[in-house]
Amino acid sequence: MFAVVPAGGSGTRLWPLSRATAPKFLHDLTGAEQTLLQGTYSRLAPLTGPEGIYVVTGGAHAAAVARQLPDLPAGQLLVEPTPRDSAPAIGLAASLIARRDPGAVMGSFAADHLVGDDPAFLAAVRAAAGVAGHGYLVTIGIAPTGPDTGYGYLRCGAPLDAGGPAYVLEEFKEKPAVEVAQAYLATGRYLWNASMFLWRVDVFLDELLRQQPALHAGLAAITDAWGGPAHDEVLGAIWPTLPKVSVDYAVMEGAAARGRVATVPGDFGWHDIGDWDTLGVVLPPSGEGNVLLGPANRILALDTRDTVIAAGSGRLVATLGVHDLVVVDTDDALLVCRRDRAQDVRAVVAALRGSGRDDLL
Amino acid sequence: MFAVVPAGGSGTRLWPLSRATAPKFLHDLTGAEQTLLQGTYSRLAPLTGPEGIYVVTGGAHAAAVARQLPDLPAGQLLVEPTPRDSAPAIGLAASLIARRDPGAVMGSFAADHLVGDDPAFLAAVRAAAGVAGHGYLVTIGIAPTGPDTGYGYLRCGAPLDAGGPAYVLEEFKEKPAVEVAQAYLATGRYLWNASMFLWRVDVFLDELLRQQPALHAGLAAITDAWGGPAHDEVLGAIWPTLPKVSVDYAVMEGAAARGRVATVPGDFGWHDIGDWDTLGVVLPPSGEGNVLLGPANRILALDTRDTVIAAGSGRLVATLGVHDLVVVDTDDALLVCRRDRAQDVRAVVAALRGSGRDDLL
Repeated sequence: MFAVVPAGGSGTRLWPLSRATAPKFLHDLTGAEQTLLQGTYSRLAPLTGPEGIYVVTGGAHAAAVARQLPDLPAGQLLVEPTPRDSAPAIGLAASLIARRDPGAVMGSFAADHLVGDDPAFLAAVRAAAGVAGHGYLVTIGIAPTGPDTGYGYLRCGAPLDAGGPAYVLEEFKEKPAVEVAQAYLATGRYLWNASMFLWRVDVFLDELLRQQPALHAGLAAITDAWGGPAHDEVLGAIWPTLPKVSVDYAVMEGAAARGRVATVPGDFGWHDIGDWDTLGVVLPPSGEGNVLLGPANRILALDTRDTVIAAGSGRLVATLGVHDLVVVDTDDALLVCRRDRAQDVRAVVAALRGSGRDDLL
Repeated sequence: MFAVVPAGGSGTRLWPLSRATAPKFLHDLTGAEQTLLQGTYSRLAPLTGPEGIYVVTGGAHAAAVARQLPDLPAGQLLVEPTPRDSAPAIGLAASLIARRDPGAVMGSFAADHLVGDDPAFLAAVRAAAGVAGHGYLVTIGIAPTGPDTGYGYLRCGAPLDAGGPAYVLEEFKEKPAVEVAQAYLATGRYLWNASMFLWRVDVFLDELLRQQPALHAGLAAITDAWGGPAHDEVLGAIWPTLPKVSVDYAVMEGAAARGRVATVPGDFGWHDIGDWDTLGVVLPPSGEGNVLLGPANRILALDTRDTVIAAGSGRLVATLGVHDLVVVDTDDALLVCRRDRAQDVRAVVAALRGSGRDDLL
């Protein structure tokens, strides 16, 4: 089995830790002493080995990715000349894998998601890979823990006879309003879309050819030249012309409409940490509801509750008599924010951009 | 006229700006681009000239004081071998001034107080010096702006015929409970004790001899040896034996009981900034009730109100959706505190001391 890890996205709401120069996936958000990217890699390695993992990232982050993943074979770090969203990134990996093994099963897993229960994750991936072997494009659907409006939803249809729970996927649903999300949960037929996909590369490339022929042709030309003397020239010429489109939109929605997508449910403590408040909900508190990230001797929280503190500069962070705050300390910037305003941290970043403080973005 | 500036005290509640190694008086608390010590010095210099000012401080702060006050004559920086409270410090200055001019008038002014209206301050000091010339020990009493329980009070008695407002001081009162303070204000006879004293040095030394003969004798011996070959030996031998006592208690209360103390009222925007909340009350807000200290391009306060921000490390301090907080950023420590808990910042310092973080005290 093969895996591709698209390592992109900025994580603006996790400023000042997450930056344009060092986005979310390059950071240890959980105190696990590994970055989210490293966590994703080590979660997949038992399935694929290092030789089965591809990471796709932008040129600005290639060096950091290479250093964080010293075991990743150099040729499997795919550097996008320009950002083109997930369909070209994942499609390139699929095309290169197909050159090695046309009938291989591959999965795609974001670089910056959290998984709390690795054995359950691996079991779900193995089950999904089994369904993918039967020719389906498979998405792992996350058992919802509440009517979250920050995720897309998957509507499950008829069960598949696959040796375990699996359903035909009827429809992808955009991020819903809260009432809609509540209605989804009441039916018991909806799962969260984690953009966690598995397929046989031949099946995926056939769908790509059908739905996105220009993208398919471009990727085929790049793959032909890959590793040869014209590599840079072909990549540089074709990549910027590829459509900027997500794999969900480019392939999965159209395939679902034709009944070619299956969903395997998963329940393994999955989270896509979008903001500091969510991090405080997801991580286990260290007392008084506080989530403390950083060396214990760098945080002094007195009469403090329900507060997220990330002490990342080596300085002491002392809090007194506060609650429901986010305090994030980095070498060049500090954020103090009410937790219920954590979504609006992007406004801080926008204000900095507006005032020309690009060094802090 | 002469002035002595006792430069001591730690300002624990103004941590993390104020430290044992750099107490309150060495810092610019107000954004005035001068430290409190420098402000005190430049306020007094028009009255006395540099040759008329003495600063008394501990050995740990002598270098910083010397550098902050480059015009202060070196011989007028009096370095205490050990801290002995204000009576020995002010008494030594008085004794050295008496050696230069036995009938001189001198005043004592703390190094870390704020004065908002310098002309009114100078007028009050000149009026008090006039009364001191008649042989009174004079204290400048501050017109109260409310029933503050953080200050001692002065009870005024009969008016003096002194060419301006002046009263016999009936009694010094300790820091009162709030109901007592309210009762004081209702009488119209009470002023705040700012420990701002003026006297003829001969009158003061006579009172010291009467009330504290051992202290008087010790200071006389030190003064005899001052600047001579036995200077260090005598100072080192005698100073540690002097009683550790405040000038209020050692001299002023006893003199008041004999009717020898006068009060001259003053109203010149005086404050003794004890904590961050008070600083936020005293300084003019920059909008939304926020008091922002530090370079404007280092503070980004979004949807923030009634918050005190001191950006002292050069890093950006961003706040979002918060109110009634104190945020103080220094090179090695950060404080986030609710304003109504500002008095308890000493608990942070105590916790650091208890955990052996002497580097942060």
